[in-house]
Amino acid sequence: MPSPIDFYFDFSSPYGYLASERIGALAAKHGREVSWRPYLLGVAFKTTGSAPLTTIPVKGAYHLRDMPRTAKYFGVAYRHPSPFPISAVTPTRAFYWLDASDPRRAEDLARALYRAYFVDGTDISSADNTVAVCERLGLKAGSVRAALADPAVKDRTRAEVDKALARGAFGSPYIVVDGEPFWGSDRLEQIDKWLETGGW
Amino acid sequence: MPSPIDFYFDFSSPYGYLASERIGALAAKHGREVSWRPYLLGVAFKTTGSAPLTTIPVKGAYHLRDMPRTAKYFGVAYRHPSPFPISAVTPTRAFYWLDASDPRRAEDLARALYRAYFVDGTDISSADNTVAVCERLGLKAGSVRAALADPAVKDRTRAEVDKALARGAFGSPYIVVDGEPFWGSDRLEQIDKWLETGGW
Repeated sequence: MPSPIDFYFDFSSPYGYLASERIGALAAKHGREVSWRPYLLGVAFKTTGSAPLTTIPVKGAYHLRDMPRTAKYFGVAYRHPSPFPISAVTPTRAFYWLDASDPRRAEDLARALYRAYFVDGTDISSADNTVAVCERLGLKAGSVRAALADPAVKDRTRAEVDKALARGAFGSPYIVVDGEPFWGSDRLEQIDKWLETGGW
Repeated sequence: MPSPIDFYFDFSSPYGYLASERIGALAAKHGREVSWRPYLLGVAFKTTGSAPLTTIPVKGAYHLRDMPRTAKYFGVAYRHPSPFPISAVTPTRAFYWLDASDPRRAEDLARALYRAYFVDGTDISSADNTVAVCERLGLKAGSVRAALADPAVKDRTRAEVDKALARGAFGSPYIVVDGEPFWGSDRLEQIDKWLETGGW
């Protein structure tokens, strides 16, 4: 059984969202599973000295143009959300709570949270909105609210963020295939070839 | 006559080099010329707060891995040079001196300078080495040395760097097609589609 593809991303990351819409089919093509691993990019930025793309002079304006253009190029629905960026803490906690009992359903939740933010413009940094997305997947509002306040869920989330950083994640998406790291939604073609050939 | 593709790059940029090896064929496929426009990335970094990739914690280590891997993926010869990065002032001046009289030959010089650095490991920041590359293209050493010290060549170089920044260039490669900017060697596929379809 080949190991899963580790997919690190931040729920506020446009390029992470673009990858989330394509990585499932890419992995399936090569008979691989995907291990979805949301983390918090802001923590990585403290190490790299980086900042949310749209806040950077000149580069920010470019990315506001590149994000919808690249989404369209790949046929992925995209509407640049406002506010942007947002804190991904709440949706990340919801994810890891569900992931502990049902990783497959947590993956569906991750996709639903991403689409809520980058297609419907829902601010998923708010607990109310994250709970509403969970409810649409059939989860009970009360359980989600309890989970978001549960110290064990907070600890698990913190531990997963630390693991992502220890793995070398510094951007979103950051994808590790059989130990080989790839950064950016524009590396999926290389990943495809890597999976096909075993690397070069 | 469709307008040329504007190709902004820094002679010390690995991804600029990768693009330099592919952009000619891409443009030719669509009946376009390429306007080669070296500039100085360090000046842009002052605005964006960025730094040479390999000097950034964590991200730097990733890029040292990604550069040769991506080169191999595209079938482009690459050997990560030392010292890295270097100042591109001298090769950029040599380029603009030649460009004033013979743009086609200046393009050949740009390719030769890039290969000298990223394949042969020649430190082209040194005047002696840039002159040697020029000589291999049949240019006279004395003329190149005089050009490198010529205030008019320095002024032209400065003016071209300013024009690149005014155009919004902040990285390398930065490629403008019919007014549409694309950043990164990983945007050549989008450029291909943009040229084919007229944009989306």
